[in-house]
Amino acid sequence: MSLTLLALNCTLKPTGASSTDAFLSLVLDAFQAEGVTGEVVRVAAHDVKPGVSSDEGDGDAWPAIRAKVLAADILLIGTPIWMGQPSSVSKRVLERLDAFLGETDDASRTPAYGKVAAVAVVGNEDGAHHVSAELYQALADVGFTIPAGGPSYWVGEAMGRTDFKDLEAVPETVSTTNRMLVKNTVHVARLLKENPYPGY
Amino acid sequence: MSLTLLALNCTLKPTGASSTDAFLSLVLDAFQAEGVTGEVVRVAAHDVKPGVSSDEGDGDAWPAIRAKVLAADILLIGTPIWMGQPSSVSKRVLERLDAFLGETDDASRTPAYGKVAAVAVVGNEDGAHHVSAELYQALADVGFTIPAGGPSYWVGEAMGRTDFKDLEAVPETVSTTNRMLVKNTVHVARLLKENPYPGY
Amino acid sequence: MSLTLLALNCTLKPTGASSTDAFLSLVLDAFQAEGVTGEVVRVAAHDVKPGVSSDEGDGDAWPAIRAKVLAADILLIGTPIWMGQPSSVSKRVLERLDAFLGETDDASRTPAYGKVAAVAVVGNEDGAHHVSAELYQALADVGFTIPAGGPSYWVGEAMGRTDFKDLEAVPETVSTTNRMLVKNTVHVARLLKENPYPGY
Amino acid sequence: MSLTLLALNCTLKPTGASSTDAFLSLVLDAFQAEGVTGEVVRVAAHDVKPGVSSDEGDGDAWPAIRAKVLAADILLIGTPIWMGQPSSVSKRVLERLDAFLGETDDASRTPAYGKVAAVAVVGNEDGAHHVSAELYQALADVGFTIPAGGPSYWVGEAMGRTDFKDLEAVPETVSTTNRMLVKNTVHVARLLKENPYPGY
Repeated sequence: MSLTLLALNCTLKPTGASSTDAFLSLVLDAFQAEGVTGEVVRVAAHDVKPGVSSDEGDGDAWPAIRAKVLAADILLIGTPIWMGQPSSVSKRVLERLDAFLGETDDASRTPAYGKVAAVAVVGNEDGAHHVSAELYQALADVGFTIPAGGPSYWVGEAMGRTDFKDLEAVPETVSTTNRMLVKNTVHVARLLKENPYPGY
Repeated sequence: MSLTLLALNCTLKPTGASSTDAFLSLVLDAFQAEGVTGEVVRVAAHDVKPGVSSDEGDGDAWPAIRAKVLAADILLIGTPIWMGQPSSVSKRVLERLDAFLGETDDASRTPAYGKVAAVAVVGNEDGAHHVSAELYQALADVGFTIPAGGPSYWVGEAMGRTDFKDLEAVPETVSTTNRMLVKNTVHVARLLKENPYPGY
Repeated sequence: MSLTLLALNCTLKPTGASSTDAFLSLVLDAFQAEGVTGEVVRVAAHDVKPGVSSDEGDGDAWPAIRAKVLAADILLIGTPIWMGQPSSVSKRVLERLDAFLGETDDASRTPAYGKVAAVAVVGNEDGAHHVSAELYQALADVGFTIPAGGPSYWVGEAMGRTDFKDLEAVPETVSTTNRMLVKNTVHVARLLKENPYPGY
Repeated sequence: MSLTLLALNCTLKPTGASSTDAFLSLVLDAFQAEGVTGEVVRVAAHDVKPGVSSDEGDGDAWPAIRAKVLAADILLIGTPIWMGQPSSVSKRVLERLDAFLGETDDASRTPAYGKVAAVAVVGNEDGAHHVSAELYQALADVGFTIPAGGPSYWVGEAMGRTDFKDLEAVPETVSTTNRMLVKNTVHVARLLKENPYPGY
């Protein structure tokens, strides 16, 4: 059974080099090694309107991104850390996913039931655990399943200014964590694809 | 295949009536209806020492509770909200579970791999989402899997003082949420029991 | 000594009725009673670009809002709660304020030193404490002072759907909290205006 | 006017070397240079009972610590980070301070009104911003004032294991941040001591 993935890069930069992009690249390579293919969408390059519906009309870029979320088995959210918190772009994605709560099927299941969410976080110096806490809570709320093992992340020393994309080498801890993130995510995604949640 | 559950009541009260207890009772009834049996341990009634090891020696009550965690397929954490945050008792449980990170097997799996965590939160007026965020993040970090659908919770109106245990009737939303929590938790727990994470 | 205030309404709605607006109205009335005047800016009605600089160029609406922040003694942030968390619009405001960290004077003081921040939070059912936690941390980081007494907020019962703007009457607790928020904010703002932080 | 300080070391270790202790030592030196004297209480060395009252009776160590809080102008909370979150010991301190909300004077002021709270956070690798967010929110709720400038903190690189107490030298960023924390805290504490909040 083959699985597909959608990665949302929630950097604040619409274009140009991004540490989140560099980090997601590594995670996608690790998914590829397990046979999972997918694409990265840089959310800030699109006009995702504020709101909590699935279509805010008039130029809203979310419906097209939402269609990709629905088509994928795995949603990977990559976000930078600003002020110790998830980016406003990632928060906007969560708000748009909130609409899933009103789109349940006959068994009370949202469109995310059966999909697995994984999280990748990159910052200069602090905040990865809190960022994953906020993302996990919101993603579980709307129906994604969170696999064992935590997010993949990198931060530098307190008040440091080195960006992940400028590191001379990828830290071994990142490679190891990515590998486990991928193994766990794929395992749960396969199980849930073959065995859907029953709902009630 | 039968599943077992351990519920940790993280109220601050060592004895006596507890809204968390009343709430967990309802959740356990819902688990029972799905054939899952288990017990509730009131953590504050035991001398769980501060620390991040599996045994802090000399009168530490954690090793006995930890043995129950290991024996169960599902860990249900029930906590009250104080100041919008999880109780210090639930935070202590998380700290003791942190030791799992140093107790991995040959495939780098912690003792929580394959176990599912569910969360129940009760407060007067505010804080359930944040409490579940903190619990999910820490529980996933140490290897538990978080099923679709969010925690079960109850809070009253802002700055209210009515306790859950004193409500005249259980709100319909609580019953519905409990039922879905149980369905989702049991589904994932069964899948993971039959199909362990491979690790790496 | 007269004080001025800027209120940022961080609703997701660019136009139309907003519970955050209704709530901020009450808070502004209470400030008015203490002789503090100010205006409300609905941030989503303006094109505030993502980024962490003070001017993201090309149509960015932030520089004009930033000028109002600099001109005011008190910054009041009003935000709705979505998924138990601050709105993406409020998060964007915080990210733009992050630029203050690079705009210190000879005594290492950011442009926010001497200004006081107050927070007002409105949601259907849960999340006010966490929202204020995230706002306080980021606002203090960039140099605002947080007065005694916590935010003013309203949330309804768990999983409720009643909006603040549709309540039949303003709860007494809201009026009382608003009054204390205003008293405390004004007191600290006066002291700091007369006695600037020395920096170092 | 002379000011006094109480520092609560919220390490999980009842005795022995502690990074939080080493960090607080530096902060206290910086306060001393501004003429502020005080002591450090290691909370885990005392039997602070769970609860939300000011005296949980029968061997409870909190009343004695609470008396020191009341006697000091500045409360400095030092906490380690475990799992990206404040220690359970610091959470217990917050819960005990919650009792202040029921101990207001004729002008609705809690015993913390006029006192300033400062925060120092130490961890191996991540979590300082979130820890300060939780502490600030709870401390402001019960009536402490939070000065400009954020907490003082140190964390190492992601998934690192070096403790602050084992660093070969104190990072320059820590010294600078401590100095600013102290300047700001002392400034607000002096102003509030001379000019109490009016309450209402």
